Amino acid sequence: MRRIKLVVAYDGTAYQGWQVQPGAPTIEGELNKALTNLLKEDIKVIGASRTDSGVHALCNVAVFDTSTRIPAEKIPYALNRYLPEDIKIQNSLEVAADFHPRRCNSRKTYEYRILNREFSLPTKRLYAHFTYVPLDVEKMKQAALFLLGEHDFKSFCSVASMAETTVRTVYQLTVEKLEDEIVIRISGSGFLYNMVRIIVGTLMEVGRGNLIPEQMAEILEAKDRQAAGPTAPANGLTLVKYEFL
Amino acid sequence: MRRIKLVVAYDGTAYQGWQVQPGAPTIEGELNKALTNLLKEDIKVIGASRTDSGVHALCNVAVFDTSTRIPAEKIPYALNRYLPEDIKIQNSLEVAADFHPRRCNSRKTYEYRILNREFSLPTKRLYAHFTYVPLDVEKMKQAALFLLGEHDFKSFCSVASMAETTVRTVYQLTVEKLEDEIVIRISGSGFLYNMVRIIVGTLMEVGRGNLIPEQMAEILEAKDRQAAGPTAPANGLTLVKYEFL
Repeated sequence: MRRIKLVVAYDGTAYQGWQVQPGAPTIEGELNKALTNLLKEDIKVIGASRTDSGVHALCNVAVFDTSTRIPAEKIPYALNRYLPEDIKIQNSLEVAADFHPRRCNSRKTYEYRILNREFSLPTKRLYAHFTYVPLDVEKMKQAALFLLGEHDFKSFCSVASMAETTVRTVYQLTVEKLEDEIVIRISGSGFLYNMVRIIVGTLMEVGRGNLIPEQMAEILEAKDRQAAGPTAPANGLTLVKYEFL
Repeated sequence: MRRIKLVVAYDGTAYQGWQVQPGAPTIEGELNKALTNLLKEDIKVIGASRTDSGVHALCNVAVFDTSTRIPAEKIPYALNRYLPEDIKIQNSLEVAADFHPRRCNSRKTYEYRILNREFSLPTKRLYAHFTYVPLDVEKMKQAALFLLGEHDFKSFCSVASMAETTVRTVYQLTVEKLEDEIVIRISGSGFLYNMVRIIVGTLMEVGRGNLIPEQMAEILEAKDRQAAGPTAPANGLTLVKYEFL
């Protein structure tokens, strides 16, 4: 048996997230189906980042074991023919038999796009969250600085999370205005459930003037989900980089 | 009666183009339906550019006549609530009763995006035409220069066109590489049926090395659709600017 690592890009609009669920379309489910059809083996992939319903990815990672003799680098060409237009393999590589994408040190980068203009723009609606309320980007930049580094992010975690510890390290958190879009970029070794979207929702509250940047310190301190802002919608979020260290 | 001008943005993916057709979803049809529902009058818009099936727009223009007392500038807010997510009004203005958007001097700018990389990227698939064949952008730039200015574009016009003259003026035609996308931008007072997409299809033949830039002169000279390249797919095309002169 050989273990193969896939880099997968997808538009999450039509899917109930990564993880297989009975009766719902999922990225993992589509990958299992396409691989099983291609290789005539019962394949179950192991995913790196189990993205939520509606979240996109340029480069999520999955591994699977196979006895196929197809060279690893040929697999994207073959597999993409079995996959729908909104899921496409970008790269493929043979890895060690014990390589497990969730048990490696890694650095993940997410991008969240906010479309901030008077009226929604149909050609951007699927990949950016629209709001007509003007956001103060300078204030959002100031607020972001409070979250850099190692902190207990319990306030930025949905209650459903079963993580053992809520301490995480944010390596990078930038807020940038590009014409009518605000792009928030965040890197870390790992994120709690809904952490990126709650950070974005809280930064938006700062941008609207409902919070001042300095309140980010209090929100961290509270260790209470109620202290932070709302969870920003899924469609603005894309996993853009996945590095194994 | 007052005549109102609308600026309309849409994602053309789900529509059979602008023009009303029985039993098919169209942009014009959706606008008529939403306006009729909002104003309780039987409204039929007049469109500026009757874009093809699958083509997008940031700023197409339509006018309609109404006896409503809603101020023109409030209409986008009211009308957008009646429109689907893939069609949104960007602006609205009262104009002279005899203003007809197709009988004015205007300058239209289209953008065509080609995604040129090894594998398709799902989050760009709706707004860029994907090809894995590497295209030589420098050669495409050289070829584009031959089409600038006033020419008989008969070779770049689908047979179905009923235009009286096939002479048109191209004000601007640029080819630019932005990471993995090639962006072709073309401005003119008016375009023949499929003209922009045939120009793009022909420039792609140059990019692939199937034609040399100098052959653009011969293709113009031939005044024969067979001399030019294929019609590029609709999804890469967006109407990005519409100026009344």
